[in-house]
Amino acid sequence: MTSQASLVAEAPGSDDRIEVPAARLRAQLQAIFTAWGMPAALAETTARLMVAADLRGIDSHGIGMLPLYDELQRAGKLTMAPEIATLRESPVTALLDAGGGLGHDAGERAMRLAIDKCRASGLAAVAVRNSNHFGAAGLYALMAAEAGFIGLATSNVWKAAVVPTRGREPMFGTNPIAFAAPARRNPPFCLDMATSTVAIGKLRLAWLDGRELPEGWAIDDEGRPLRDPAEAMAQRLLTPLGGTAEMSSHKGYGLAAMVEILSALLSGARVAALGDARDPDPPRYNVGHFFAAIDPAAFRDPEAFRDEMDEFINALRASRPVEPESPVLVPGDPETAAEAERDAGGIPVSRKLAAMIREIAAACGVADLMESAGHPGGPRDGKEAP
Amino acid sequence: MTSQASLVAEAPGSDDRIEVPAARLRAQLQAIFTAWGMPAALAETTARLMVAADLRGIDSHGIGMLPLYDELQRAGKLTMAPEIATLRESPVTALLDAGGGLGHDAGERAMRLAIDKCRASGLAAVAVRNSNHFGAAGLYALMAAEAGFIGLATSNVWKAAVVPTRGREPMFGTNPIAFAAPARRNPPFCLDMATSTVAIGKLRLAWLDGRELPEGWAIDDEGRPLRDPAEAMAQRLLTPLGGTAEMSSHKGYGLAAMVEILSALLSGARVAALGDARDPDPPRYNVGHFFAAIDPAAFRDPEAFRDEMDEFINALRASRPVEPESPVLVPGDPETAAEAERDAGGIPVSRKLAAMIREIAAACGVADLMESAGHPGGPRDGKEAP
Repeated sequence: MTSQASLVAEAPGSDDRIEVPAARLRAQLQAIFTAWGMPAALAETTARLMVAADLRGIDSHGIGMLPLYDELQRAGKLTMAPEIATLRESPVTALLDAGGGLGHDAGERAMRLAIDKCRASGLAAVAVRNSNHFGAAGLYALMAAEAGFIGLATSNVWKAAVVPTRGREPMFGTNPIAFAAPARRNPPFCLDMATSTVAIGKLRLAWLDGRELPEGWAIDDEGRPLRDPAEAMAQRLLTPLGGTAEMSSHKGYGLAAMVEILSALLSGARVAALGDARDPDPPRYNVGHFFAAIDPAAFRDPEAFRDEMDEFINALRASRPVEPESPVLVPGDPETAAEAERDAGGIPVSRKLAAMIREIAAACGVADLMESAGHPGGPRDGKEAP
Repeated sequence: MTSQASLVAEAPGSDDRIEVPAARLRAQLQAIFTAWGMPAALAETTARLMVAADLRGIDSHGIGMLPLYDELQRAGKLTMAPEIATLRESPVTALLDAGGGLGHDAGERAMRLAIDKCRASGLAAVAVRNSNHFGAAGLYALMAAEAGFIGLATSNVWKAAVVPTRGREPMFGTNPIAFAAPARRNPPFCLDMATSTVAIGKLRLAWLDGRELPEGWAIDDEGRPLRDPAEAMAQRLLTPLGGTAEMSSHKGYGLAAMVEILSALLSGARVAALGDARDPDPPRYNVGHFFAAIDPAAFRDPEAFRDEMDEFINALRASRPVEPESPVLVPGDPETAAEAERDAGGIPVSRKLAAMIREIAAACGVADLMESAGHPGGPRDGKEAP
């Protein structure tokens, strides 16, 4: 896994890219996954959830992950036809074993199970072990919101990159927390955040732009701030949210640990802080996830809840901005805007990533379905041209 | 509520203080609350939970709150003999009405109810409306951990002080999140954090020390960073965790909003972002809380969970520190250390706060029970002398 940093998707930032309709990307991924040996339904789900992340503008968790998934499958770390098993179950809880496959399908099934149990009981939680990367956590939280419930989704990561406050050794992955809640007229509130200050992808973006990193994003193995993005990408030592002790990075560290407890310790998955020391290259990464759903109707009139969610969202958006041209956003707003744009105009794919996908497709005997769409594309809008 | 900033407890930082045994402080508070008209059991619970915060070193949420509670009761904002009512209930959920009293007793009852339900069902959540400040959120999360469960506690705040990313208007209180999980040989993991970068108390500490604030703690109403602590205390505009947009303050903002949704929108309490605009000085503040408990036994062997929690905690503590003399801590460690010290040596109370407590006691005809302990005290240890 030494080449992970080089496999993160290119951030759009040049006009050297194509725009591909979502359906084409899904077909391309589905064909590749089928060639890898995934059953049709699993290939469909995985491709759909990956492209759903891209549609929402979360490029770091969509098709840009394919090169890493390819590396994992070539190393024999992914089960292509996993059996998802229910290990424990009650009316309001369950523990699933994802069977060693990619986490998207297991994640969707686990949240669907939580939603079904929540519909019956008002509250439910489902943990998953023996999984892998599941894409964008927000997609699972949103499933609950679309069912009218509050949704929570967390995941740990097999590889530690986040360093505790006072430390100089990575003990956690970027351990995401996603939380969604339904409104009536607005799209759901949807927070989807890594518990690190920034994700690895942001280091890469700074590198592409030739910018120094702000102090507090990344450190070296002596704990000193790193400003050089290339060096920071090589070292892969991220700070927890807060960035520095003075700015309360112990809180981001605590949140990362909370996610590890919910996702890995509760489910019996591999705990990054322990696993790396015992066996940095195990046959399976045994990633863990946690999903919960809460029915507002268990607590109050759910229609009143949704109406008040609208008032809350509207009040936040209407609150006084520092710059009138940059209004206050609500978690989920940037993703909703990206979705509208990309649904219509296609998903921007850097030519470098497109070439990698093409190479991966060729290696498993799959045709190039992206360019064949005859959608060569160019800069999406003037803002992003160099 | 204009004088809140001046009512935050003095931070220990000078030797101008006394050390008071916990039992004495409890007796003092209990006598005051009884004189205010609280039933004996309620006065006992409230005093016990306030002093429990002080014992754990969380001075900002213990007896230092008494002057503010006094202000609230004199303004007629607190119900002294509240009836706590169960408004909705299922085997795994409940909504309580706290009856307008201080939140400690309602919080303890709500978490106890969540624990009872969790014991029967493996999972439970209880929301509370019509409450007030409940002290240190961590105490409620710890109740779950002491019962062998994972515990979550959140609260909103009646008065907004935290400004969303891009904004210059406060929309949230410091909206705490507490999360605890039991180990076997170690004290429970216990994260107890405000979702702002720092609490108001830290501004005061900087002011006492004559230090400039780091950029990113507080802003003025144009959104510019404030470095002058006196000015920052007057303006009361805090940043969300992250501090600046560049350092991902949108994540702290999202977490604050998540806490508001769980604590206020779900329970039907007053939403700070809406309430301030409608009626900044309502007859009751109608604060909301949210409590949840998860039984590890619903997911895996609970003994294995506890053992692995120990390994996890030990691995974090043993991870390489930047400064060998400042080892990596685990959330809860500073509080456990404070508790050991203060259990033995008493709770440090600044003479200024002691004088305020004495005045509050005198105003309701209660004797001074603090000094009468004959425990004049002095600096607790050399480190903290000026």
